[in-house]
Amino acid sequence: MRYVHKVQYYETDQMKIVHHSNYIRWFEETRVYMMEQMGLGYGKMEEMGIISPVMAINAEYKSMCRFPDIVNIDGVVSEFNGVKMVVSYTVRDSVTGEVRCKGESTHCFLDSNGKLIRMDRAYPEIYQMLKGLME
Amino acid sequence: MRYVHKVQYYETDQMKIVHHSNYIRWFEETRVYMMEQMGLGYGKMEEMGIISPVMAINAEYKSMCRFPDIVNIDGVVSEFNGVKMVVSYTVRDSVTGEVRCKGESTHCFLDSNGKLIRMDRAYPEIYQMLKGLME
Amino acid sequence: MRYVHKVQYYETDQMKIVHHSNYIRWFEETRVYMMEQMGLGYGKMEEMGIISPVMAINAEYKSMCRFPDIVNIDGVVSEFNGVKMVVSYTVRDSVTGEVRCKGESTHCFLDSNGKLIRMDRAYPEIYQMLKGLME
Amino acid sequence: MRYVHKVQYYETDQMKIVHHSNYIRWFEETRVYMMEQMGLGYGKMEEMGIISPVMAINAEYKSMCRFPDIVNIDGVVSEFNGVKMVVSYTVRDSVTGEVRCKGESTHCFLDSNGKLIRMDRAYPEIYQMLKGLME
Repeated sequence: MRYVHKVQYYETDQMKIVHHSNYIRWFEETRVYMMEQMGLGYGKMEEMGIISPVMAINAEYKSMCRFPDIVNIDGVVSEFNGVKMVVSYTVRDSVTGEVRCKGESTHCFLDSNGKLIRMDRAYPEIYQMLKGLME
Repeated sequence: MRYVHKVQYYETDQMKIVHHSNYIRWFEETRVYMMEQMGLGYGKMEEMGIISPVMAINAEYKSMCRFPDIVNIDGVVSEFNGVKMVVSYTVRDSVTGEVRCKGESTHCFLDSNGKLIRMDRAYPEIYQMLKGLME
Repeated sequence: MRYVHKVQYYETDQMKIVHHSNYIRWFEETRVYMMEQMGLGYGKMEEMGIISPVMAINAEYKSMCRFPDIVNIDGVVSEFNGVKMVVSYTVRDSVTGEVRCKGESTHCFLDSNGKLIRMDRAYPEIYQMLKGLME
Repeated sequence: MRYVHKVQYYETDQMKIVHHSNYIRWFEETRVYMMEQMGLGYGKMEEMGIISPVMAINAEYKSMCRFPDIVNIDGVVSEFNGVKMVVSYTVRDSVTGEVRCKGESTHCFLDSNGKLIRMDRAYPEIYQMLKGLME
């Protein structure tokens, strides 16, 4: 699923490029967008008492984004066994298509007591939806 | 009360200066430090069920901070009538003493139901402590 | 001119509201958008060797934004004498219209030597465009 | 080398923990500190026309940091072949010693023309210093 982000001035650093930490935030923007498009917005998850913390992230910076570039971020669920979910992201310049960054975030699902949820058993419907975000 | 902040690389923008939004964060760092030095750290306030939201802020940028400058931030309670508290900040270069920024934040105090607290009546001891942060 | 911002998860703080420093960044997003809509995007200004630093900001927080609210930010040039420009912002919830925040940023214009530009004399065309952003 | 960071309020998110993107910024704080302690501060590198961009980052979140925790971040150069340098970080709670996060950043060195520098050949002295940051 494609999310579009407009680079903001405050995201730059003195190297005149986007500071590398901001891509991690863009991954989150993309993830939130993907979930919302699937009808699984934050409100819905919260109502169900499900939170989905970040267990790990990684990013490889291929080329540099600058203000005021517009980037396309393609997000896809690349792994999901019902417990651990990996979302993969590719950031590309919207004009040239050049890859700027590739990365992943790893998540689990916790109930309101902080207990790990097996999504495939506890919420088979959501599990199927998230599976639907795999290519 | 003086708080010391070391400018971080990620706080710069492509003008090769600290992005103006970060000073607002430094004001908060200073405020937290002042409270802690008075024995009124976040934990203590939280235990008492008191929160202190920001009602207004302002800042005047006099000269520019750069990475890796170290700045001294002098914070003082400049107004406090028991309900509304204004904290004033002066950011100076630690080497030259040159003023970089002057600003203020305005606060009230709320209980856990979001009800306004008259600190002078409800918590006279804290009220006196905060008054002690006036020059 | 109206700019639309979607509140991001990373903009929240532990009070479960948008951290107050982010509104200052949204003002910048709005300002950049306004300039771009007038054909005065960053690239064009840069080519002309004009930079427009922030001299002062202020904000009053009226009510709280939460994730994943969408806010409308109305920006207007409220003062401009050819040298000093003030841009005013009103942040409103996109659903209820309730005012979340009102603020201003004050700017001057500098050439590549850091010398103050009288826009009305040096760039009368841009001066007129910016005047066009007054109500 | 150990760097100490005090968690700031503005680093928290609505899960009442430090937002995961901030650890990436703390890695940078640690790296800058390590370089400064070796006499290789930003000013010195800049004078020599050397920049050191981030090529990749990764982080595993083991447990959560909260405001106002103080964390110890141990940084070490874990790989350096003269061209590519990997710095590894372990974030621990300063009170309990519990590991909060482990991560790495990968860097190369570029001259002012963006050309890759073989540090072992071009700057053997700096190369040796950086090697000294390996355990």
